[in-house]
Amino acid sequence: MTLALDPAAQDLLFREARTANTFTDEPVTDEQVREIYDLIKYGPTSFNQSPLRIVLVRSPEARARLAPHLVEANRAKTASAPLVAVLAADNEFHEELPALFPHFPEVKDVFFSEFAVRERNAALNAALQAAYFIVGVRAAGLAAGPMTGFDPAGVQKEFLDEDHVPVMIVNIGRPGKDAWFPRSPRLAYEQVVTTV
Amino acid sequence: MTLALDPAAQDLLFREARTANTFTDEPVTDEQVREIYDLIKYGPTSFNQSPLRIVLVRSPEARARLAPHLVEANRAKTASAPLVAVLAADNEFHEELPALFPHFPEVKDVFFSEFAVRERNAALNAALQAAYFIVGVRAAGLAAGPMTGFDPAGVQKEFLDEDHVPVMIVNIGRPGKDAWFPRSPRLAYEQVVTTV
Repeated sequence: MTLALDPAAQDLLFREARTANTFTDEPVTDEQVREIYDLIKYGPTSFNQSPLRIVLVRSPEARARLAPHLVEANRAKTASAPLVAVLAADNEFHEELPALFPHFPEVKDVFFSEFAVRERNAALNAALQAAYFIVGVRAAGLAAGPMTGFDPAGVQKEFLDEDHVPVMIVNIGRPGKDAWFPRSPRLAYEQVVTTV
Repeated sequence: MTLALDPAAQDLLFREARTANTFTDEPVTDEQVREIYDLIKYGPTSFNQSPLRIVLVRSPEARARLAPHLVEANRAKTASAPLVAVLAADNEFHEELPALFPHFPEVKDVFFSEFAVRERNAALNAALQAAYFIVGVRAAGLAAGPMTGFDPAGVQKEFLDEDHVPVMIVNIGRPGKDAWFPRSPRLAYEQVVTTV
């Protein structure tokens, strides 16, 4: 192996990192989430769109509002996680572009005046940022439990507004007892990569 | 800072890493791409869908076929990159699910018999994997230049088939002269994260 990233970091972020299904009681603090964000905010997005928005579902009352919108198989996982993050895409991200793309502030109107274009861009770029967030949770030494098994309309109505659409929900914490199954296989290089 | 990931790795992957717009002539080998894939294949996807497919555009003939489909502002960047990767989503990823999700092989038919469901899942999960790929290019000590400024239908027709849709194109190499502008601002934590 000749990767520049040292083997311990490779293990922490990818090789040994796993999607946790159970968690310990150890709290995840707002300060930890701030450190994660302050790392992963640098991940690239198209035109620096940065459409990811995060709702931390922390209070027992909010947790109780979230549970019914998860598919049943995900409810116990989320109940055991000390912190749950709803990751959403802001379809009105273009309002921030004059600040985020200062060398061409007109990009807001030149490229993003159409809602359908914004929606498509927000979906792609918030997904990229969701992946950076998962990597960031692992960089903090925590386990992430990303889930797409939930009712998007229900979660949107409960925790977001009409401009923000949910991308995924991530359970966050220290892995608990029997936190995961054996790792599933991955596709071989030859199944994924072709050269022309 | 209390992140578990060491500061050098934080810099390599996020803090100091930048989207390169120019590259040196130093080749990027297939072996390097293999090492990148063998790291980032472990990044999580829904049901281990793993829909990302990669076309390495390497030959001068293929490079010439790609150029006209890029927006004009991206052509010089791609011309200077020693290797260019077309990242695509496989809408027929479910064919691999019995191997990828062996403890519930029926998932292929139970959840993914509808094309619209597959298309939505492939778009999200290939985007997650595209972000892991960008992180992986950086983990290899290389600079990534991800681009969404291209004609998707043209790139699909030229390099893919009807089951595979392009997600992004990534220039890969060592950063060249004046490889980037000063870094653009990022949103503050308070603009992105709320707690309930």
